[in-house]
Amino acid sequence: MRFQPLQNDSFLRACQGLATPHTPIWLMRQAGRYLPEYRDTRARAGSFMGLATNVDYATQVTLQPLERYKLDAAILFSDILTVPDAMGLGLSFALGEGPRFATPVRDEAAVHALRVPDMEKLRYVFDAVSSIRKALNGRVPLIGFSGSPWTLACYMVEGAGSDDYRLVKTMLYSRPDLMHRMLEINADSVAAYLNAQIDAGAQAVMIFDSWGGVLADGAFQQFSLAYTARVLRQLKRDHDGVNIPRIVFTKGGGLWLQEMAALDCEVLGMDWTVNLGRARELVGASKALQGNLDPNILFAPPAQIDAEARKVLDSFGTPHAGPGRGSTHIFNLGHGISQHTPPEHVSVLVDAVHAHSRRLRAHQAP
Amino acid sequence: MRFQPLQNDSFLRACQGLATPHTPIWLMRQAGRYLPEYRDTRARAGSFMGLATNVDYATQVTLQPLERYKLDAAILFSDILTVPDAMGLGLSFALGEGPRFATPVRDEAAVHALRVPDMEKLRYVFDAVSSIRKALNGRVPLIGFSGSPWTLACYMVEGAGSDDYRLVKTMLYSRPDLMHRMLEINADSVAAYLNAQIDAGAQAVMIFDSWGGVLADGAFQQFSLAYTARVLRQLKRDHDGVNIPRIVFTKGGGLWLQEMAALDCEVLGMDWTVNLGRARELVGASKALQGNLDPNILFAPPAQIDAEARKVLDSFGTPHAGPGRGSTHIFNLGHGISQHTPPEHVSVLVDAVHAHSRRLRAHQAP
Repeated sequence: MRFQPLQNDSFLRACQGLATPHTPIWLMRQAGRYLPEYRDTRARAGSFMGLATNVDYATQVTLQPLERYKLDAAILFSDILTVPDAMGLGLSFALGEGPRFATPVRDEAAVHALRVPDMEKLRYVFDAVSSIRKALNGRVPLIGFSGSPWTLACYMVEGAGSDDYRLVKTMLYSRPDLMHRMLEINADSVAAYLNAQIDAGAQAVMIFDSWGGVLADGAFQQFSLAYTARVLRQLKRDHDGVNIPRIVFTKGGGLWLQEMAALDCEVLGMDWTVNLGRARELVGASKALQGNLDPNILFAPPAQIDAEARKVLDSFGTPHAGPGRGSTHIFNLGHGISQHTPPEHVSVLVDAVHAHSRRLRAHQAP
Repeated sequence: MRFQPLQNDSFLRACQGLATPHTPIWLMRQAGRYLPEYRDTRARAGSFMGLATNVDYATQVTLQPLERYKLDAAILFSDILTVPDAMGLGLSFALGEGPRFATPVRDEAAVHALRVPDMEKLRYVFDAVSSIRKALNGRVPLIGFSGSPWTLACYMVEGAGSDDYRLVKTMLYSRPDLMHRMLEINADSVAAYLNAQIDAGAQAVMIFDSWGGVLADGAFQQFSLAYTARVLRQLKRDHDGVNIPRIVFTKGGGLWLQEMAALDCEVLGMDWTVNLGRARELVGASKALQGNLDPNILFAPPAQIDAEARKVLDSFGTPHAGPGRGSTHIFNLGHGISQHTPPEHVSVLVDAVHAHSRRLRAHQAP
């Protein structure tokens, strides 16, 4: 498939450690419930899965935030749990609740029955990727994504969200053999899934390790990081001669940055507990950093949003500016945007990031 | 009041950096719902607050885990939210739910109405401390505790538990002046409360900063750590000529260990995401470390519990053994014990910690 050439490549350049005139910004969950136009489309679709599985709806909502804000990237509208759904676990979203699986994986027989799913079952995702890429018409790049093997396992065992991860950790500590088996299958499934998104037109891919941070030191390395690495090993480096950057985001993973710095990926995402300056020192210039404003700052008045956005930019410091590769920053929240966010506050943030990051560069020019 | 001399001082010695024959162990929430005898007393008391405010019941449940396990300390049975309840916010616990305040603090008027409560309203806590201390009869030391100023503020503003801390963070970012005012009052209240527990017989005190870890870098230092320090500055160093060690535990605070190492306290508590060896290097020998087994490990079979307990002990390394002060370890979970824990698994843990920590010392003897 042929797509239009890219007009705004600041996000992709920053992913690759190349200089940009401003710090690019996009927001996790930027297409979502805080936007009234999203809620309209969602109502027409009838259900979350009705929305996510319909190519036209998925395209429409992915583009909605770009109509309002000068964001530097689009992200596929989908869910992190599509892969276990394709494995046959039966994903659903009850109104006002989180995701739920009809048949969670809780015993040896259920683990042994797991297989890498037929990617044809996820065709609706790849079709959405191509459709969105076409609709973007080269405006900004499109990011594809998946949950990490460990994060998928959490939901697959718990069957829903959890506040103590008791069931999945009981399996991990009691039957590490079963957990490793599930994580292998998840990793190989996620790799195939992201590669198919790349084939369909995704220009960067992100692995959401949303629950890596609930693991104990030691267990994180063994049960989350090792399988994220297994996914990365299998990912395509480029498509049609163009490099495809890979982003890894572990919520609550700030204590393991040095280990994450060894991952074979271009970008590490950070939540708001991390000091970006300290992270930059630990990680070095070999990776771009993405993050990390507390999404709750968007509930404060504009002046405070502006001040806090500057603090995040300043904590990273001046990004690499010359030719060649160096240490770069992609602005984002430290977690998905809240459904209660006033939409007009997002403009304040995006504009503050663009304006202040241009000033930072101007002050540092020789 | 005169109490019996202490028979097992391993916990207090370890708090002070003094050598002990084994690594002392106690468990956060060790008197609790996982014990059938606790559930019986709770049923007789009618409600959680009925249990916590009755001196005889509070004494009885505090001692229950000591009847079953060779724990090296007792902790007052109470709740972290007694102080805002005494401020008039109306604490209650609906069955199967968390704490709830009848009148949360959500605007300027409510913040300005806050005062350090009359400690007479918390007399039931101090009476319980004296009663428990008497009932312990010198067996093991008694730990008193409170929520941290920030953790109290979270509940006071949210009115209950939260998964995004939207209301309290909105106040923090929109009206930092109000948040600072509330935290000052909380800090002075907590200090008075802990000092009264010390007067009543508490032999060590612990500040639970259960929600410090939800703050952004920068905000943590300003809105949590600074007010924990304000509490510590006001605490009595000793009582009747005996030193009273102070423990600070910030759940999710692993990224700020270097800053926490500067706190004027004897012990830092850690959750399971922290590597104790790394923490020991960062914190130095001036403080004991407490923690940090993932409570979910108690759902695994005995052999795995034993193995994971050893891992935690080994990650700390050999504690200080000679005369004088050095770097010591107090074994604990990284968070409160789960109500679903099989009680017999707790014996496995306690015995494993005692046995393995004795072996560690024997191997290191000259």
